[in-house]
Formats: sequence, C-alpha cells, structure tokens
Amino acid sequence: MAPSIHLTSPENPHIKAVLRLRRHRERRRQGRLIAEGTREITRARDAGLDLLELFWCPTMVGDPSAAQGCMANRSSTARIFTVTDSLLGKMAYRQNPEGLLAVFQSPTWSLEGLDTGSTSSPGDGPPLWLVASGTQKPGNLGSMVRSADAAGCRGVLVADAQVDAFNPNAIRASTGAVFSLPVVAAPADLVVESLRAGGVRVIAATPSGGIPYTQADLSGPVAVVIGPEDSSLDPFWLTAAEAHVTIPMFSRAVDSLNASVSAAVLLFEAVRQRQVATL
Amino acid sequence: MAPSIHLTSPENPHIKAVLRLRRHRERRRQGRLIAEGTREITRARDAGLDLLELFWCPTMVGDPSAAQGCMANRSSTARIFTVTDSLLGKMAYRQNPEGLLAVFQSPTWSLEGLDTGSTSSPGDGPPLWLVASGTQKPGNLGSMVRSADAAGCRGVLVADAQVDAFNPNAIRASTGAVFSLPVVAAPADLVVESLRAGGVRVIAATPSGGIPYTQADLSGPVAVVIGPEDSSLDPFWLTAAEAHVTIPMFSRAVDSLNASVSAAVLLFEAVRQRQVATL
Repeated sequence: MAPSIHLTSPENPHIKAVLRLRRHRERRRQGRLIAEGTREITRARDAGLDLLELFWCPTMVGDPSAAQGCMANRSSTARIFTVTDSLLGKMAYRQNPEGLLAVFQSPTWSLEGLDTGSTSSPGDGPPLWLVASGTQKPGNLGSMVRSADAAGCRGVLVADAQVDAFNPNAIRASTGAVFSLPVVAAPADLVVESLRAGGVRVIAATPSGGIPYTQADLSGPVAVVIGPEDSSLDPFWLTAAEAHVTIPMFSRAVDSLNASVSAAVLLFEAVRQRQVATL
Repeated sequence: MAPSIHLTSPENPHIKAVLRLRRHRERRRQGRLIAEGTREITRARDAGLDLLELFWCPTMVGDPSAAQGCMANRSSTARIFTVTDSLLGKMAYRQNPEGLLAVFQSPTWSLEGLDTGSTSSPGDGPPLWLVASGTQKPGNLGSMVRSADAAGCRGVLVADAQVDAFNPNAIRASTGAVFSLPVVAAPADLVVESLRAGGVRVIAATPSGGIPYTQADLSGPVAVVIGPEDSSLDPFWLTAAEAHVTIPMFSRAVDSLNASVSAAVLLFEAVRQRQVATL
C-alpha cells in the first residue's frame, strides 16, 4: 500500500471539501459524491466510478484488509488519507461509521443521453422505466432505485426533483444501485416527451380509481409513475398517462402502501407479465 | 376540554415512566406503548386501544384542534398533561416532534389466541400470513406489517424475535398498522406448529435456488417466510417449508431486494393468484 497522508485538522481543505459535499448543491457543483463503508465503496468502484480520495481511520476500521481492498487497483491519481477518530466522525453520515469513506466522481446521466426505447440488457425485454414524481425522502428514492434495478429497469426518471439520488441516505437505501443504474432528474414535460419518443407508454399509479394493476397490460415498453409519499400524484401525470392503475388494498387500518413498496409491486408485475408473454 | 395538569420537571413520575417506555423490556413489563403525533394517536384510537395518558406542548402544537381531536371522546380515566418544549423534546422519539404523544395500553395478541386457519375478513380468501424470521431493524418490521395489512394478511408472526413491533420506529414505519393487525412473537417451532394446525402451507423466500415465485401456488392458505436483512434464512425454515420461492433479479449491481419489499412482492402475488382463482 502506498504511504498515506495523515490528517488531524478539521481546517484541512480536503476535510472541508468533503464536509461541503453534504449539500446537494455542492455535490452538483463539484460533480462528486461520497460513498461510506466498504460495501458502498466497493459498489461505486464496481460501477466504474472514478475514486478520487479515500479517508480512513486506522483505529476505527476493524479489518485493515477491508480498507486495503477499497484502495486496491486504484488509479495513480487517487489520494489516500488517514484521519483521526474525531475527524472521521465529523465526515461520516452514519451513526456508527465503519471508519472509511471515499469521494468519487459522480456519474453524469442526462435525459438527452438516454435511449428510452432501447431494449438493451439487462432484462432484454421491452424497456421498463420507473418515474418518481415529487418524491420527498431520499431514502424512498434510494429504495425505489434498488427495486428498479432488481426489476431490470432501464433507469429511474425523477420528475421535478425534490431529492438527489446521491444524498447519503439515498445511496444507503439503494445499497449502491444509484452508482450503476441511470437516475436522471428532469422537468416532467421533458420526461414525458422523452418516453413518448421511445415509444414507451406512461402508466400512472394512483391510490384509488385506476384499473387493478394486474389487469393493465404492462408487458410492452412502459414507464410506471409513482407519486409523492404523502400527497396525491401531480395532475400533470394523470393527464399524461395512457392508463391509471391501482393496487387493491385489503387493509384493516392503513390506506396505502409505502411509495417504494408500490413501485416494487408494480414493476415486478410488469416482469411477471413479460415472462408470461415469452413462454 | 377538561383542564389539564401542567408538567415542567423531568423528575415527574409520569415523565419518567414515559421515558422508560423507550426500552422493549419496559414496554412489555408495563404493557404500554407510545404513539407520537396526531396520525399515530388517531390510528391507535381507531384500532380501539385504550388511551391512558396524553402529553402535549401548547407552544409546539401548531393546530390546537388536532390535539383536541386526539383527546375527544376519551374514557374518563385518561389523563391529559401539558408539558414544556424541553420536556416534550426529551419524550419524543422523532427529530421534529409535532408536540404531542400518548401512552396506550398495548394490544395483547398471543399465538394461542390466533386461529391460523381462519378465513375471516378482511380479504375473505384463504388465510394469508407473513412470517418475519430474524428481522433486525424495527423499521423493516413496521414496513412489513404495513404491507401485510394492505395485502389482507391475517397477521405477522415474528419468529425468534429480534425486534419489537411497538418500537417507535416500527410503529412509524407501519403508519400505525401494528395497532390493528395482530403481530405475534414466538419461537419458530411453535409458529410452524400453529400454522400446520390451521392447514397453512409454509413458503420460504430465498434469494436464490427456489422456484420462481410466480410459479408457486400461493392461492391457498399460505404463510410467506422472509429472512433477516443481511444474512440468509435460518435453515430451520428451509427444512420446515413446503416450498422455496425466489424473486428473479435482473440487477446490474445489487443482489437482492429489501426484506420488506420482497415481502410485499410475494404477498401481492398471492393476492393476484387468489383473484385469478375466483374469476
């Protein structure tokens, strides 16, 4: 392992730059994100993101080989720093930090760069997209990205974004899926335009009043639109959608599913229908 | 509104009793739970739980009618206290408390009291159960209870419990479903015995190696078993289960779904099959 520089002062410019990355605006300005812990760092590297800086605290990292694994085969420009407990504690987002975090260059996805009608792998069926409209909690966005990735979605389109996919809570809830699955924030009208250009049908999920989701045809190219956690879907989407679907509820008490759970139920129904269609 | 007693000291025995309710053991010993905020309190009351004490902070509660709604039609033995900001802050579990919380008598469900084979409403189809084995995070248990309630499950059986359904994070993630849906913690062997006695088939969810879940027959009386978040399902369940099912993954990066999301996908597939069966 190359010798690393030891940092002890919160006034160090590298430390201050990392602390600034807690803010969405600063992540966007710097084009950087923070991955915390070995799992996230490994997934960011597996996704091909460029490791710029790694900070670790020797007294907190129980297994030094884990830290070494995070640093292995890095590019020659990546810088490694060791830091004190107290500094790592300030930089970490988690309550019980593992003792290492890394700064990566953020992926740069754009609506213009996506081919919404593409049938490329994974999944290899007709394109499947998730649209998150008005999502407020970063953890919910991350959870939706994780489920969208598992269902073979081409990506997640965040319409009129309230949240950032590289918020530490979003990264954590996605278990790193935000590093590899395209997540693109864009105005709702441009999202619809892009989906239409790709021949993708827009399916809006509504808590009530839609057709039962299992009776909707989700076997072709579709984008499933999920609204905000605590309020109804923007009327724009009700108008733009080719169909409204509803998950039937049999509750004693609770009137709806969590937004990210609804997304998963709808996306895996689309997967099921595609598998039936190809039998 | 009846006059209420104003509390200012953290040494007040009512305050100290509430603070002790943060611990699982103490909730069990006292047979009480805390509901925080108007939505949780309303749902606890709607579920028929007995309101014992309500604490509210007039300077924090933006809309006094919300607090009054929580107190309306209470039994004559329920006690109302106003508290200072600082006291409410100590008692609250949330980071941005609404300014009111209430102590309720906990529901007392037991495995002996459940008829696992019962086909009573809601849902009215064959009984559907969720078994949570080794769940570690209260939020995940709460989220599973919310989804199980939405899917019309008869209840959630928590095998070899690590978590308490009345943990504040579980209550919050369930949005109050834990107040009305039976959630029973019991040793795994007694859970299996109870399910078998009701003629309920045990279906174990495994990350790989099972039959595709859409090809399993989930239309009859079934219990879906979900394992812990970060480790594999207890071999006990693999042996006890009549079938192993797997949700197919099409991920670029992430190898599994969140435990509560997996539960929802499986339970709503069971709902779909029941609806097809009755067409």
